[in-house]
Amino acid sequence: MTNEIVIRKDRLWDSIQALGEIGEVDGAMMRVTGSDADRRARDRVVGWFEAADMDVAVDAVGNIVARRVGRVDAPPVVTGSHIDTVPAGGKFDGTVGVLGPLEIVRAWNAANVETDRPLHVVVFTEEEGTRFGTGLLGSLVATERLQADKALALEDEDGVTLAEALRSIGYDGTAELGLADAAAFIEMHVEQGPILDRSDTAVGIVETVAGITHHRVTFEGEADHAGNTPMAMRRDAYVGAAEFALELERTARRHAETSNTVGTVGKSKVTPNGTNVIPGRVELGVDIRDTDDEHLHETVSSAREHARAIASKRELSHQWQSLLEVTPTELSPDISNRLVEAVQNCGHTYRRMLSGAGHDAMNVAAVAPAGMLFVPSRDGISHSPEEYTSPEDVYMGTRVLEAALRELTRSG
Amino acid sequence: MTNEIVIRKDRLWDSIQALGEIGEVDGAMMRVTGSDADRRARDRVVGWFEAADMDVAVDAVGNIVARRVGRVDAPPVVTGSHIDTVPAGGKFDGTVGVLGPLEIVRAWNAANVETDRPLHVVVFTEEEGTRFGTGLLGSLVATERLQADKALALEDEDGVTLAEALRSIGYDGTAELGLADAAAFIEMHVEQGPILDRSDTAVGIVETVAGITHHRVTFEGEADHAGNTPMAMRRDAYVGAAEFALELERTARRHAETSNTVGTVGKSKVTPNGTNVIPGRVELGVDIRDTDDEHLHETVSSAREHARAIASKRELSHQWQSLLEVTPTELSPDISNRLVEAVQNCGHTYRRMLSGAGHDAMNVAAVAPAGMLFVPSRDGISHSPEEYTSPEDVYMGTRVLEAALRELTRSG
Repeated sequence: MTNEIVIRKDRLWDSIQALGEIGEVDGAMMRVTGSDADRRARDRVVGWFEAADMDVAVDAVGNIVARRVGRVDAPPVVTGSHIDTVPAGGKFDGTVGVLGPLEIVRAWNAANVETDRPLHVVVFTEEEGTRFGTGLLGSLVATERLQADKALALEDEDGVTLAEALRSIGYDGTAELGLADAAAFIEMHVEQGPILDRSDTAVGIVETVAGITHHRVTFEGEADHAGNTPMAMRRDAYVGAAEFALELERTARRHAETSNTVGTVGKSKVTPNGTNVIPGRVELGVDIRDTDDEHLHETVSSAREHARAIASKRELSHQWQSLLEVTPTELSPDISNRLVEAVQNCGHTYRRMLSGAGHDAMNVAAVAPAGMLFVPSRDGISHSPEEYTSPEDVYMGTRVLEAALRELTRSG
Repeated sequence: MTNEIVIRKDRLWDSIQALGEIGEVDGAMMRVTGSDADRRARDRVVGWFEAADMDVAVDAVGNIVARRVGRVDAPPVVTGSHIDTVPAGGKFDGTVGVLGPLEIVRAWNAANVETDRPLHVVVFTEEEGTRFGTGLLGSLVATERLQADKALALEDEDGVTLAEALRSIGYDGTAELGLADAAAFIEMHVEQGPILDRSDTAVGIVETVAGITHHRVTFEGEADHAGNTPMAMRRDAYVGAAEFALELERTARRHAETSNTVGTVGKSKVTPNGTNVIPGRVELGVDIRDTDDEHLHETVSSAREHARAIASKRELSHQWQSLLEVTPTELSPDISNRLVEAVQNCGHTYRRMLSGAGHDAMNVAAVAPAGMLFVPSRDGISHSPEEYTSPEDVYMGTRVLEAALRELTRSG
């Protein structure tokens, strides 16, 4: 007999807090793949899954899968996220997408819920790319977008390979996650942006993960004396870079009217960087994203053209190096619709939205119907000890996820 | 009997090269006040002056004065500059204003020139402010704008005082330079800017030393995720700073049409400075100069107003800290006219100009009629091993200086 399913807000919050004590220093999380904190966090999560009667297995790159059996031998429904962090990160990024599902399994167990399809909860390795330089690493391998051998050979700054790091914490397994066979995949994650928080919305249903491009843009002029070089004789790299940043902002704002374009100069290095010297060289780190591939290319082209024109007008030389290009990922409309039904059944507020950040769900979307659920990030802050999602918000997100997983685990 | 006066280009150049070997490492000069290189350079210069029959004395802060007697007991004509360098500097900055006069004395001696007034050549201590943090230090003390006791108590980074540093190299004296009694003062110096070089002009006659102001301007917004924060929800400190830099450039260019305004953002520090993070804070080092005090204040006020308006429009907070304010210095029109006559007599090209950089002559101008003569800096480069003035250019400058000093040392 199935009793009422009760997602316990306090138990869920306590699990988040308990996991948040592992790798925490002065409020900041530091759980890097293969570290002792990573081992302890994995052991804790595995212990919880096993205590919830789940079968736990580990694949070659340390991805963990906890399996709850179904009544029929049908493709599983999969959910999950990651528990590694950036340096000085927060305790919600990734974690809510692992411990929300844990709470769902606990609630199902308490209510004697039996599903048709199995439910799998995955914990992906090295999502942040903090130690081995490649983000979304576990899901890249699990979806066969990257060979396990290549991933295992990646080295950290000290020359330690991923293979060695995983062996040292006992998380080098042989299982297969079988994501290509999944009936559905949903990742719950903190938004890492201000939209839900500012609009007081409970959950976001992600329809698209934006394409991401990174560029290094360099302007070079002449480092002359700030006092003795008249305005008309200057080749000032700083004002060239400044003009470029404002043009990028203008272009992104204009494109944002019809798309989801964002353009950012996040990084800047000025040489020689003395108050009384005209900057001879400025190197910018530029981030341009869009959910629409065509718009993304238009914005990048337009930014390149601006850089060229500004350099030419100001007699600067310039360089444009593209460092990263990830195309936009459409998530499954079917899963999005299921999530909308779920949130409506729960009576919470929601909005359909995009993710500007990359997530493991992007990789899974290449092999199975995948969706994402966002919960609010207070003030939009993430990758920081200030990162916060309230107990109520984690609870509401988990309720919606539970409702969606319950429907999806019904066969036929 | 007076023979023909011959400035010997080769001897002058050889002296510059010989002094340039002291404190030189891989082409870069490093002659810091009180260092062993400073002692050896001083000893060399003093040796040359003494060999030219001059009387050498040293004052409390290590300023050197070499005196050539005159026929009458009248106020002396003084010339000179400095021989200390910035770290990794060049071998012309300061040096040409000491060794040019040495060559003049040598030429006068060879031609048996007797002047009415005495000629004094001074070598000022710590012009660059490299070790004790205060530029123009020697001339500040020699013109009683700074008390010797206070200067001597200044400490370097290791807590060594100027007094100790001078004692250690044997240049702590008791003489008085008596600059307030000088009939005239002329400093020859490299331009440190591109104007003479680009216009193929032999010498510049400096009429005004620009006022200099330095400011630290900080814009503060919010360091949000570059992917998840829509353009309309940003408080991006970088684009605020960029807009400020372009407004400063625009204002300076406009004022430069009627004055000699220059405005520079030379320094920039972005926080957190990650490609995928919207800059939460940008700190700028701003340099604004003008030969006209009113214009200078107008430009600074206008820049402050722009900073305020940009911050307000972009919902940023901002701070404006003024770190340095030196008012413009008018040099003596009489000396400038004497220099114009001298250059015309020599048949060289010249232009009247300003100095955007501070020089010891600024301090001397407060107590005596002072002028300055610029020789070209190749490509406008200074404070660098690339700093260069050709033998021909040093020669022409020295000829002009000689002609002017010869006239000025005539009494009556």
